[in-house]
Amino acid sequence: MKTNQPIMNEQSRGVFVIAATPFTDSGEVDLESIDSLTEFYLEKGVSGMTVLGMMGEAPKLSESETTLVMERFLKRVNGRVPVTVGVSSASNLRLERLSKEAMSLGAAGVMVAPISNLKLDEQVYGYFTTVANLLGKEIPICLQDFPQATGVHMSVNVINQLTDDFSQVVMLKHEDFPGMRKLSQIREQSKASNRRRISILVGNGGLFLPQEMLRGADGAMTGFAYPEMLVQVCDLFDAGKPKEAEDLFNIYLPLLRHEFQYGIGLALRKETLRRRGAIKSAFVRRPGPVLDAKDLDELSALISRLDFELA
Amino acid sequence: MKTNQPIMNEQSRGVFVIAATPFTDSGEVDLESIDSLTEFYLEKGVSGMTVLGMMGEAPKLSESETTLVMERFLKRVNGRVPVTVGVSSASNLRLERLSKEAMSLGAAGVMVAPISNLKLDEQVYGYFTTVANLLGKEIPICLQDFPQATGVHMSVNVINQLTDDFSQVVMLKHEDFPGMRKLSQIREQSKASNRRRISILVGNGGLFLPQEMLRGADGAMTGFAYPEMLVQVCDLFDAGKPKEAEDLFNIYLPLLRHEFQYGIGLALRKETLRRRGAIKSAFVRRPGPVLDAKDLDELSALISRLDFELA
Amino acid sequence: MKTNQPIMNEQSRGVFVIAATPFTDSGEVDLESIDSLTEFYLEKGVSGMTVLGMMGEAPKLSESETTLVMERFLKRVNGRVPVTVGVSSASNLRLERLSKEAMSLGAAGVMVAPISNLKLDEQVYGYFTTVANLLGKEIPICLQDFPQATGVHMSVNVINQLTDDFSQVVMLKHEDFPGMRKLSQIREQSKASNRRRISILVGNGGLFLPQEMLRGADGAMTGFAYPEMLVQVCDLFDAGKPKEAEDLFNIYLPLLRHEFQYGIGLALRKETLRRRGAIKSAFVRRPGPVLDAKDLDELSALISRLDFELA
Amino acid sequence: MKTNQPIMNEQSRGVFVIAATPFTDSGEVDLESIDSLTEFYLEKGVSGMTVLGMMGEAPKLSESETTLVMERFLKRVNGRVPVTVGVSSASNLRLERLSKEAMSLGAAGVMVAPISNLKLDEQVYGYFTTVANLLGKEIPICLQDFPQATGVHMSVNVINQLTDDFSQVVMLKHEDFPGMRKLSQIREQSKASNRRRISILVGNGGLFLPQEMLRGADGAMTGFAYPEMLVQVCDLFDAGKPKEAEDLFNIYLPLLRHEFQYGIGLALRKETLRRRGAIKSAFVRRPGPVLDAKDLDELSALISRLDFELA
Repeated sequence: MKTNQPIMNEQSRGVFVIAATPFTDSGEVDLESIDSLTEFYLEKGVSGMTVLGMMGEAPKLSESETTLVMERFLKRVNGRVPVTVGVSSASNLRLERLSKEAMSLGAAGVMVAPISNLKLDEQVYGYFTTVANLLGKEIPICLQDFPQATGVHMSVNVINQLTDDFSQVVMLKHEDFPGMRKLSQIREQSKASNRRRISILVGNGGLFLPQEMLRGADGAMTGFAYPEMLVQVCDLFDAGKPKEAEDLFNIYLPLLRHEFQYGIGLALRKETLRRRGAIKSAFVRRPGPVLDAKDLDELSALISRLDFELA
Repeated sequence: MKTNQPIMNEQSRGVFVIAATPFTDSGEVDLESIDSLTEFYLEKGVSGMTVLGMMGEAPKLSESETTLVMERFLKRVNGRVPVTVGVSSASNLRLERLSKEAMSLGAAGVMVAPISNLKLDEQVYGYFTTVANLLGKEIPICLQDFPQATGVHMSVNVINQLTDDFSQVVMLKHEDFPGMRKLSQIREQSKASNRRRISILVGNGGLFLPQEMLRGADGAMTGFAYPEMLVQVCDLFDAGKPKEAEDLFNIYLPLLRHEFQYGIGLALRKETLRRRGAIKSAFVRRPGPVLDAKDLDELSALISRLDFELA
Repeated sequence: MKTNQPIMNEQSRGVFVIAATPFTDSGEVDLESIDSLTEFYLEKGVSGMTVLGMMGEAPKLSESETTLVMERFLKRVNGRVPVTVGVSSASNLRLERLSKEAMSLGAAGVMVAPISNLKLDEQVYGYFTTVANLLGKEIPICLQDFPQATGVHMSVNVINQLTDDFSQVVMLKHEDFPGMRKLSQIREQSKASNRRRISILVGNGGLFLPQEMLRGADGAMTGFAYPEMLVQVCDLFDAGKPKEAEDLFNIYLPLLRHEFQYGIGLALRKETLRRRGAIKSAFVRRPGPVLDAKDLDELSALISRLDFELA
Repeated sequence: MKTNQPIMNEQSRGVFVIAATPFTDSGEVDLESIDSLTEFYLEKGVSGMTVLGMMGEAPKLSESETTLVMERFLKRVNGRVPVTVGVSSASNLRLERLSKEAMSLGAAGVMVAPISNLKLDEQVYGYFTTVANLLGKEIPICLQDFPQATGVHMSVNVINQLTDDFSQVVMLKHEDFPGMRKLSQIREQSKASNRRRISILVGNGGLFLPQEMLRGADGAMTGFAYPEMLVQVCDLFDAGKPKEAEDLFNIYLPLLRHEFQYGIGLALRKETLRRRGAIKSAFVRRPGPVLDAKDLDELSALISRLDFELA
């Protein structure tokens, strides 16, 4: 590990923005846009970044591209904020290698989603136990609980047990839907049994962020193309102004809801980031969603409306 | 059929509100609340009602309760608006009997969701062909396209073919998610081939109603507990005021998004209807969602905020 | 309950045949065939029967037909063997009423499959806890663990907990696939912790019956149309002759494997039962599988081959 | 392409055995076992091989291992039989590169399973259209129809359309379950419309091979650890001896059914191949199934029984 490398931990909070992976119009990795996107996110005030997540089109990168992208993000960030790297894989070997490579390049920790054929609590617990043991105590882990994409359901019990048994489990990306009660249960059971309190950052595009902050979330880990709003909402909550936070949130809600659409949401986000100057091309690798003229007009209308509200 | 019985058809538009089935606190069907709920909906200006849908807890009613509920709604409505009856069933015999009973009691048509093991276009087409033939030309059918609940995916081709082959198919409840492009495709392909234009009412709680109206929807069929907003939005679209429609919609969006949560959404809606005086108890039959103190407080906060915005 | 009513319990073993529900060619319930089918099963030596299971087309019966079918089977059996009644339902009220009705008519207990939206151990445990409390200590329960049909996965832990907490849980219908290790784990953990040993009867058409008997199964609960083989296999195991049991089993395996096909398996079984004189018509209610000429020829060939092997 | 490189085509028939990927006990690719396994398969008379399929643990190989494994198999086979390479990928770019690499190394064609989020006929057709266009007319394609693993259902219409539109689609790996009627429909509709007749090789471990040969299959593509039986069954069918073919098949059916178990089947096959001297270690990469003592004893018993039957 590097000196002064920021590390993800139980106190991590605020917005860990899920970074898109920028491509050129012909589908090559666009390194310069990685730089500009990084600066864009940092200017908006994010407290962390997550690269190579599902939204980062990680499964569509070759191994060398994976390294290239990770390296470039980490180099550009250069320790200014912690960077979490998505390392989910069908292969434990690859997961382990990628995690160690990430840490050696300056990552703050890794995010792991369960493989898709786990059906029972003990299978989910067993999977993460294996992963945690493979990675060791020095690599901080964020559990990704996203059943809509993985098909795997993580119970509060399993999350608690993993928290108890592995000090390197420091964060939960909470993305079950509906999942608000689960969030409350984790916080309540944790307090009741003097369990270590881990960081919980919410996903689902932030669709329920104000409600989730009140239930004990520490922030959001999501790729909404206006991360400055998420940042301000978190700041306002920290400042004890939940009402103002929700007022602000609701102004962006129409667009945020629009991006919430699975699949096409990725294309909408990349297009928005392109329009905002953060990346040069909105290209999504194939197979993947492609926006048509109607989609683009619809997005324009929603953005204009937001601009008008903010003006 | 009765004289002057309103009939669902291709011109049906506006808001067909999905009616909850009210129970007493001890779980019995509450006939008086059916009356008050009906009046509530009609006062809010709905152009139709849909009873015995999934939100109506139809699978949890006995056969005699099913008849009782349907009868009471239809009697109370008394022809003031068309009433669509959900008749989806694992048994074709039951589907047929229930449909005929509904029509004889004054229904405007029936809504049918596909059984859950249909995997291919031809299987979906085959299922609805059988159903349409069983019901005959006199019973108007609304196709319910709701893959999140049924597991069945309906293609534009299948919907088009059913429209072409069965004049009784007059409406689509559009509830695929994401589903906006599908909506546009149906409208475009229909126009391009001079196909009969059927009514399309959108579901998913109306989460994308303004966008969907612009893409060719004729209104909404959903159970949002503030149907007056949906009515006004549709009216504003009809009046050529899409901007104003969306302004209004966005005021309610935070609460609407909250109700959009699968499962618990039903309990939230019943509780809201209870608070608005439309029904006496928010009881949901078991197995079913139950709100806890946090859920109730959260709902209260969202409702207060809406009341404040509207004041 | 009746005097001398046979009751399902932890010692239940051998073959509880899953009874088809016979219809006439026009789809009406065929009461006389219920009688002949019952005599057929009893002649073949089954030690129990299960009526109104999935194979019994229970979801396609009206409420009055449900009562009629159950009543007729129970009356004809007349206490000669225990009869388990499938009571799975989307409604707890209906599940409770049907269970009590079944017991009052002479059933030996009820079989309950979980509703389909349970995802976590605690949800599955919670569901069956509610059911067990509703039914009380006097109604023996068979847990149906059939994830391929229900989408619900039951862990060994949940099965153990339910066994510990509810004395009325006396049987497991084991139908997970692959599920052999689970069977062994239940038996091993039960022994290790001095837990009450419940009856385990295997499903999946009996495809792995010899292996499962060696792992601790007490018999089979399945609808294979040659139940005499299953009976003899169980008897041979009881007589300490596992090799002979497997020899016999393997003779029928080609046909048994053929019936194992989901969906169409029901039609194949009814057709075979018809040919064997057990029922008058092989009619399956719609929607449901229909055999074509090729299917019928194929079945004939497999039956001829079996007859030849047995001759 | 190489001179005299055998190419997969519409006339391909017999047994294309799905090759395991052998590892050492410590999990490294075992090149020598690739050689011995290849010789084992060829001695058993297979008419083709399929490498890097799901059973080949392809998703658990790194990119360089993928190349290494493919190269070694192809080198060892050295044109003696056609070798199909599994190239399914979440990335079209990778699918294309891997396919071209495979062909340049001597592959006979590629096998492609659809990505997992395709729900409608037109989406499945669209996916394979893109793939076929990417690969061009010179790379023969085998469509893998395996909904139990991919979640994607392929209709007869889609398969027909792809056959009509792309001359490079020369083979179907038929693995839908139950899928016998589908197989008949493809053959019947093909004949009825003078469509090009493609090769159909069946999967599912060959569980229904005799029935499927009668319905028009050309052989099997599966990894059963006794491929000599599959070869002889196909030969007997070719020689006009279906009865003898089925007699032989049924002797192996108990073991074949045992291997048919999803997940653990792979471990059972590798262990059996190890015992037969084809590979040095039965190691399966993690995450993956591990046999316990009971599983091993059970397998031993089934193999002893088979040996006894064959003696």
